[in-house]
Amino acid sequence: MMGKARVEAFSDGVLAIIITIMVLELKVPHDASLAGLLALWPVFLSYVLSFIYVGIYWNNHHHMLHTVHHVSGSMLWANLHLLFWLSLVPFVTGWMGENHFAALPTALYGIVLLMAAIAYFILQLTIIRAHGSDSVLHKALGRDFKGKISPLLYASAIVLAFFSQALAGAIYAGVALMWLVPDRRIEKTLAS
Amino acid sequence: MMGKARVEAFSDGVLAIIITIMVLELKVPHDASLAGLLALWPVFLSYVLSFIYVGIYWNNHHHMLHTVHHVSGSMLWANLHLLFWLSLVPFVTGWMGENHFAALPTALYGIVLLMAAIAYFILQLTIIRAHGSDSVLHKALGRDFKGKISPLLYASAIVLAFFSQALAGAIYAGVALMWLVPDRRIEKTLAS
Amino acid sequence: MMGKARVEAFSDGVLAIIITIMVLELKVPHDASLAGLLALWPVFLSYVLSFIYVGIYWNNHHHMLHTVHHVSGSMLWANLHLLFWLSLVPFVTGWMGENHFAALPTALYGIVLLMAAIAYFILQLTIIRAHGSDSVLHKALGRDFKGKISPLLYASAIVLAFFSQALAGAIYAGVALMWLVPDRRIEKTLAS
Amino acid sequence: MMGKARVEAFSDGVLAIIITIMVLELKVPHDASLAGLLALWPVFLSYVLSFIYVGIYWNNHHHMLHTVHHVSGSMLWANLHLLFWLSLVPFVTGWMGENHFAALPTALYGIVLLMAAIAYFILQLTIIRAHGSDSVLHKALGRDFKGKISPLLYASAIVLAFFSQALAGAIYAGVALMWLVPDRRIEKTLAS
Repeated sequence: MMGKARVEAFSDGVLAIIITIMVLELKVPHDASLAGLLALWPVFLSYVLSFIYVGIYWNNHHHMLHTVHHVSGSMLWANLHLLFWLSLVPFVTGWMGENHFAALPTALYGIVLLMAAIAYFILQLTIIRAHGSDSVLHKALGRDFKGKISPLLYASAIVLAFFSQALAGAIYAGVALMWLVPDRRIEKTLAS
Repeated sequence: MMGKARVEAFSDGVLAIIITIMVLELKVPHDASLAGLLALWPVFLSYVLSFIYVGIYWNNHHHMLHTVHHVSGSMLWANLHLLFWLSLVPFVTGWMGENHFAALPTALYGIVLLMAAIAYFILQLTIIRAHGSDSVLHKALGRDFKGKISPLLYASAIVLAFFSQALAGAIYAGVALMWLVPDRRIEKTLAS
Repeated sequence: MMGKARVEAFSDGVLAIIITIMVLELKVPHDASLAGLLALWPVFLSYVLSFIYVGIYWNNHHHMLHTVHHVSGSMLWANLHLLFWLSLVPFVTGWMGENHFAALPTALYGIVLLMAAIAYFILQLTIIRAHGSDSVLHKALGRDFKGKISPLLYASAIVLAFFSQALAGAIYAGVALMWLVPDRRIEKTLAS
Repeated sequence: MMGKARVEAFSDGVLAIIITIMVLELKVPHDASLAGLLALWPVFLSYVLSFIYVGIYWNNHHHMLHTVHHVSGSMLWANLHLLFWLSLVPFVTGWMGENHFAALPTALYGIVLLMAAIAYFILQLTIIRAHGSDSVLHKALGRDFKGKISPLLYASAIVLAFFSQALAGAIYAGVALMWLVPDRRIEKTLAS
């Protein structure tokens, strides 16, 4: 009954702004020295990681919304809930980067990723419920291995962050790599 | 005579930016301590409240514009007037949060909410006038209980802010909760 | 041959961001006092003025693009040229506001308005040339009184700013008021 | 199989934000003096240069996407890869401007331009591969002289930056001028 164009446009806008304001945390060094530039490496590294994560969310969101026929009020709020957690990504990215991947910021980064994953799961569920179990999305997801393993990996990285930040960081990077492959399940089901 | 696509696109853009730049007030703490993070709770709390308010406005704006057939010059300006007051939300959110819900910032937060509510009311009126009393929006609104009670509640919270900020804050949260239910009246009328 | 949808979308995006980042110049006072808030009045006043100006540009841009059938390469650059001068509005707004309407910032504000007006005029010319003298825009503009008088008024305000900032400010406000009435000429011609 | 509307909308959003947040590096001087304003000239000059570059990318992106019929997963990521390098433009613009075109920042500016050019080339290749050698884009590009000479010029400017920043800057400006002429090859092929 409602068009999905504005939901896509608004989500695109918020995601585009999130991905771009993160770069503001990459504060311009006051001198022109190589040392000043190199001191930014942890902020840059966390920027790259978060850029990929927001890119993954945009990509999967793009595919998921593609299967939606009508937008309900609960979908709008499930979508805003997802955008809320993603809007915190620039904050935790900056905190983690500026503190050179210290324990607490690294754990909080995982908490925000975990909450975003849960919010994405809720949005997925809301869409499937509205369209019935015959929906394209439902068929496309199948066992949804990636969607189920990611929260577990985030949760373990949150705990690990207090013992080995390198290991926690490796898990965040690993999950991102796993998702970099776009959701071909939906692409395939749509194509068939 | 004019399409409404650009009005929606521009409003979506402004609302998406408002909702996202508010997070910039959540300034990254300079150390990695739990104390530094917890000190941000009033800024975070006011961010959550304002995120919900802007979300509500986006949601209701989405529904209201859905009933518009042709966009007039006065509608464009009534819409810009609404966006003006909403553009002040990040400012009052930051001021209220950073001052731990002190009296004056808490009152000013209510003033901006009140002005936005009045601007929304004017936009609604402009749309109804242009489409006649048979318009979908006019039928859908009915007595418009929520639209009438909200300004009264904001006004009382503005006064109360000077005596009990907790009570004023509770009213802001209460009005938000009341509106969280999307405007099903319009959804129903459109569906029938 | 080229669709105009992306030109509108990109312009909407840039204008939405310009109008919203201006509010970032309205820096949150560090205390919760009325004095701290009132000290912001010149910044707030210049924000209101610039919000109206960007709103006017968006409005007129919306009407002008409505008459365009095909977008050429020169139109894209004429449009970017306009957006360039408008992108400087937040800078001159902040400078004028923070310096309580001092002579030089008030003059520079006028220079940016003048350059934007010239850029708008060039864009208009580019569109009319591409569509021929039978174009809707050409007919709608007629003598284009407002478009011709505005640059003259800006130019006089730039000079006046060094003698009476109040007078220069009054001219800026006056031109804005004159334009607040949307471009009904185009609306009428389109409707007929 | 996937629509390209959201890819365009998201890219427009990111490019619009990049082009607009660059102006935030143009920090408002604290006094109203001419000296304070003139001290900003290197930041302003680098802003103008980067505005033109992002404008060129938007322009060419607009033309290139125009030839795309279906969007694949690899196109989405090739596009995000391009946006990643462009998102670093505000950072290198600010660093180069604030350090008055010192050697290292001027070289880094070229590195980001080079990486963006490579990312654009990869996106072009991904689109051509998906559409076959009969594609409009493939025909339109022809020998693609500009696309091949630009990376070479950027690379030479990166090295030159350590000997003569004026020469490196002249190369950046020259490449921009060369591209200012929009991609008429695609326009012509589409028109024929």
